[in-house]
Amino acid sequence: MEKIILDCDPGHDDAIAILLAAGNPSVDLLGITTVAGNQTIENVTRNALSVCTAYGIQVPVARGAAGPLVGPQALAAEIHGESGLDGPVLPSASFELDDRHAVDFIIDTVMAHEPHTVTLVPVGPFTNIALAIRKAPYIVDRVKSVVVMGGSLTRGNITPAAEFNVYADPEAAEIVFRAGWDVTMVGLDLTHQALARPELQDRVRAVGGPISEFVLDIWAWVGTAMDDVLQIEAPAVHDACCVAALIDPSVFTVAKADVRVEITGRWTRGMTVANFESASGMKHFGGTATEQVDYRTNVALELDWPKFAGLIVDALERLTSARS
Amino acid sequence: MEKIILDCDPGHDDAIAILLAAGNPSVDLLGITTVAGNQTIENVTRNALSVCTAYGIQVPVARGAAGPLVGPQALAAEIHGESGLDGPVLPSASFELDDRHAVDFIIDTVMAHEPHTVTLVPVGPFTNIALAIRKAPYIVDRVKSVVVMGGSLTRGNITPAAEFNVYADPEAAEIVFRAGWDVTMVGLDLTHQALARPELQDRVRAVGGPISEFVLDIWAWVGTAMDDVLQIEAPAVHDACCVAALIDPSVFTVAKADVRVEITGRWTRGMTVANFESASGMKHFGGTATEQVDYRTNVALELDWPKFAGLIVDALERLTSARS
Amino acid sequence: MEKIILDCDPGHDDAIAILLAAGNPSVDLLGITTVAGNQTIENVTRNALSVCTAYGIQVPVARGAAGPLVGPQALAAEIHGESGLDGPVLPSASFELDDRHAVDFIIDTVMAHEPHTVTLVPVGPFTNIALAIRKAPYIVDRVKSVVVMGGSLTRGNITPAAEFNVYADPEAAEIVFRAGWDVTMVGLDLTHQALARPELQDRVRAVGGPISEFVLDIWAWVGTAMDDVLQIEAPAVHDACCVAALIDPSVFTVAKADVRVEITGRWTRGMTVANFESASGMKHFGGTATEQVDYRTNVALELDWPKFAGLIVDALERLTSARS
Amino acid sequence: MEKIILDCDPGHDDAIAILLAAGNPSVDLLGITTVAGNQTIENVTRNALSVCTAYGIQVPVARGAAGPLVGPQALAAEIHGESGLDGPVLPSASFELDDRHAVDFIIDTVMAHEPHTVTLVPVGPFTNIALAIRKAPYIVDRVKSVVVMGGSLTRGNITPAAEFNVYADPEAAEIVFRAGWDVTMVGLDLTHQALARPELQDRVRAVGGPISEFVLDIWAWVGTAMDDVLQIEAPAVHDACCVAALIDPSVFTVAKADVRVEITGRWTRGMTVANFESASGMKHFGGTATEQVDYRTNVALELDWPKFAGLIVDALERLTSARS
Repeated sequence: MEKIILDCDPGHDDAIAILLAAGNPSVDLLGITTVAGNQTIENVTRNALSVCTAYGIQVPVARGAAGPLVGPQALAAEIHGESGLDGPVLPSASFELDDRHAVDFIIDTVMAHEPHTVTLVPVGPFTNIALAIRKAPYIVDRVKSVVVMGGSLTRGNITPAAEFNVYADPEAAEIVFRAGWDVTMVGLDLTHQALARPELQDRVRAVGGPISEFVLDIWAWVGTAMDDVLQIEAPAVHDACCVAALIDPSVFTVAKADVRVEITGRWTRGMTVANFESASGMKHFGGTATEQVDYRTNVALELDWPKFAGLIVDALERLTSARS
Repeated sequence: MEKIILDCDPGHDDAIAILLAAGNPSVDLLGITTVAGNQTIENVTRNALSVCTAYGIQVPVARGAAGPLVGPQALAAEIHGESGLDGPVLPSASFELDDRHAVDFIIDTVMAHEPHTVTLVPVGPFTNIALAIRKAPYIVDRVKSVVVMGGSLTRGNITPAAEFNVYADPEAAEIVFRAGWDVTMVGLDLTHQALARPELQDRVRAVGGPISEFVLDIWAWVGTAMDDVLQIEAPAVHDACCVAALIDPSVFTVAKADVRVEITGRWTRGMTVANFESASGMKHFGGTATEQVDYRTNVALELDWPKFAGLIVDALERLTSARS
Repeated sequence: MEKIILDCDPGHDDAIAILLAAGNPSVDLLGITTVAGNQTIENVTRNALSVCTAYGIQVPVARGAAGPLVGPQALAAEIHGESGLDGPVLPSASFELDDRHAVDFIIDTVMAHEPHTVTLVPVGPFTNIALAIRKAPYIVDRVKSVVVMGGSLTRGNITPAAEFNVYADPEAAEIVFRAGWDVTMVGLDLTHQALARPELQDRVRAVGGPISEFVLDIWAWVGTAMDDVLQIEAPAVHDACCVAALIDPSVFTVAKADVRVEITGRWTRGMTVANFESASGMKHFGGTATEQVDYRTNVALELDWPKFAGLIVDALERLTSARS
Repeated sequence: MEKIILDCDPGHDDAIAILLAAGNPSVDLLGITTVAGNQTIENVTRNALSVCTAYGIQVPVARGAAGPLVGPQALAAEIHGESGLDGPVLPSASFELDDRHAVDFIIDTVMAHEPHTVTLVPVGPFTNIALAIRKAPYIVDRVKSVVVMGGSLTRGNITPAAEFNVYADPEAAEIVFRAGWDVTMVGLDLTHQALARPELQDRVRAVGGPISEFVLDIWAWVGTAMDDVLQIEAPAVHDACCVAALIDPSVFTVAKADVRVEITGRWTRGMTVANFESASGMKHFGGTATEQVDYRTNVALELDWPKFAGLIVDALERLTSARS
């Protein structure tokens, strides 16, 4: 049973990550924290509450940072719409936010559980996690692991070089990647394999009921938005990949790499630069990087698509039958 | 008949580019200029003279810049050895350098021919070309086109983000990509398709004679060096791809992109960042790039390997029969 | 009566700022928060408690950030010694820390008072203030003003270009200077006028008693440390200048300037760049700064030294007579 | 007798530097080279020829770079007007440019004289000098010294941090300061002492004749332009300070410093950062500067104004009597 805090900015694929975390019996969803990203903190927090209300997900929801640590704010309205979750129709929230700030919720929750039992799953900009580290550095040694959706080994989606979550708060990403804990980076190279292909959409349709309709509405919206902006053949189910890996680590392969976040580049701000060489090959970062560091980041490489699709369908079936 | 100046740093694959240019009847090789890159300017100039001496290539050779415009010097001894062309045995040079600096040779040669008839082919760091532009800006409108070996759309070979020729002089690359002339970028995404696979090596072996032996010796050396450093299955024949495209443009496909060189990044200096969006999508370079520019760079994408291999074999056959 | 929170890293001149705030009747010292800077968070927090214990200063003390937001940590052991307050002998602390983190103490205290009544006085790195803004952005409109010790109009003290407090956390300084509240920058140009000249030291000696001895011990230590490192003729009483200005704004003149913090420079990281031109003259920041912003920062220029010295002596006299 | 090449962008104070070099018997003005800076290369070259024509100065004039090495072009029309030398009326040029590019003129002239006898005096952007070094690195050991007008120890004149000549081509300045030859930096701290105060203007008026009228017209123009832009009390005679120091080194004091040019800063591009600490104190440049370098740059500090003024008046007297 994996205890997780899902730190998210719903967001279409975030919503599916919530459903997967709530619907799989091997995940203990300790709480949801929100962060400005795909949309403003107001919008993404309302969306998180609405999804939980609509589908009977009873976990604490704590509101977090309204913008990035240092740089200017970037939203993703061209993908997620003005509400951050355009497309599906959702009820108003019928329950209250946790009265703590997301940063305090994260710190309190990590410290309230046994050491090395709580995993953080940031699938929006990493602002809350970075603030929690800076406020309470002792959580770094207490957390079990961190599985982030963000970054790319090759090309970006918000700029040619940068993936949105890292681009939206590069300094926070730098803090998270260099904190010294166990981090897995689930970047675009992986999530662009996690597509809602017709076959998956058909299986979700076969589940029936409002939850599966909600997911199909999400994919319908993203598919349309994507036609204008991205160049992939079907909606990518980015954020759910992180949750899937905590249910079944074999859902993707990983390799160790030293991952750095570019902060100062003119055209590359927010890019993740992954060095797969051994630590002794560090010269290959270029002339200024002389420090020797251990490999820390597990970089997701190859998705087992059937396994991933199976986990999605399974969670929707469980949630649907629990509601009927 | 394409008139070209080959600006190079031989260099193993540079030597093959020289042979292809000299051996194909549709190329008029106006001269060879040298630039520090794979090795020091002394070494690469000696290598250029030796190759020309050994295989009867009678064109002017002019020595160029000893180091990059602004940054520190990077050599590639781990690939090309201490001489810059380790492996094959070559005679001493038996003829003299042109008494002009490469920069003046380039300027003079471009201006001595009809407008829009001379193509520059820089396959080492772009220092000479950048200096020529700064000394004689009027060559920009006079040149026919520029076909560079350098850059990458995805990952680098000298650092995780940067390809060697651009990394070795990023400011020069910036100058060349932004000069306003017709540029084709033949980067690693293309040249890592241009491999000396066993099939090609067999066909070269079948040509027989000292020139084909020389090429096989080059590939034997590079193959061994590569095992330690790179991760491709056979020696890449990078530089010759540019010459091949001038012989037969259909040897690879191209797409238009706005290419910027990262100069200031901590981990990304020397990276080429290519934006395939339309000019109106320029926001996708990130917050600071508000200038509207036209698409200028032709980015090489897909190699027609059989066609490329055929050009190599053909040139070696012609050179061999000319010498017998 | 000015309500202030003193955010500090004692630190020799920090200790004098505490005494001035505690000893002047027109200052209501709501609390002291600590931040890593001159020394580690453990050391500066212990020093704050010890100074309060020794001289009967009964205010909450809350411990804050252990290091900067993003960059590497810089300490100032060569000026302040291994303890952060080497030289004077101080008792162990006899009272407890506030149980809140400094960031929460700041937020709670600002919100617990009427709007526009609390002034923040950060005289160490600005990490706590930046974290408070990011956690609770609504404090920006609630605070009365912010008077910082940090920055320089001309040359630095930790590097040729940067003053220590800004250099130690440039990203935090950027956040504080750009938050949109009323900021006064008390930089080296001002504080290097605030010297403990022999005349002031004589007047403090005349006060007599342990508090005045403590202050003289501070200056004796700083004077000696300075001989090796800095090049000013007497100990600078940096941090107390901010408190002095809240007691009597006429203690220094100010001019409006647009102040930016350099984050990305190779040799200038942590430098404050002040533009005294009108907003329409913004082109003078250089090519990339096209945004139009209002003047926000009040930059301290000329100290009224007799007035400043008088405030120091007055506070020491009051504290001394209160204790006898 | 000091042999010099004056590399300039006339420019009002450049014109006075030409007159001082031509009018003082201890200077052997080997030639004038021009560089885009205060105005376009066309304008400054025409101005150089016109000044030489008007006042009988018979030296080679060679045209140089039309813009900076890497960055965008900055002109100073708000100070020097649309022509680059607005105000005085000058004749058309009556003699021809040298047929060499300035870069080649510099290289040829340095090599044509005995080693260590030629001093370069760049008083515009350093583009020509940088190009000469990159084309012919051997001139570095051949030149006697380099006396540049550029940079600042404290504040700039084109941006808050940068002086115009360095800002206009920071990469070229980096190359010149780091070449390893003997460099003297005559920056704003010095040249803002070299003012054409009323006393000097009166003495120049007393000389009489067209040359002195020309100089007074220059100061009249600059004085008016300055009122809007700068904040100094009288026209600064920047460029002539370099020539003056070659006539009489005691015209200003110098101190050794390690001078670096900021290239990558957001607000500090083109700033000169001077470290007066010993080489062992290099940590004080900040965390990334670990290289140990020798002190190389002589930084001008205190001007002997009467001596400087005397040299100006003396040169004008000699030129005037030579023409009468």
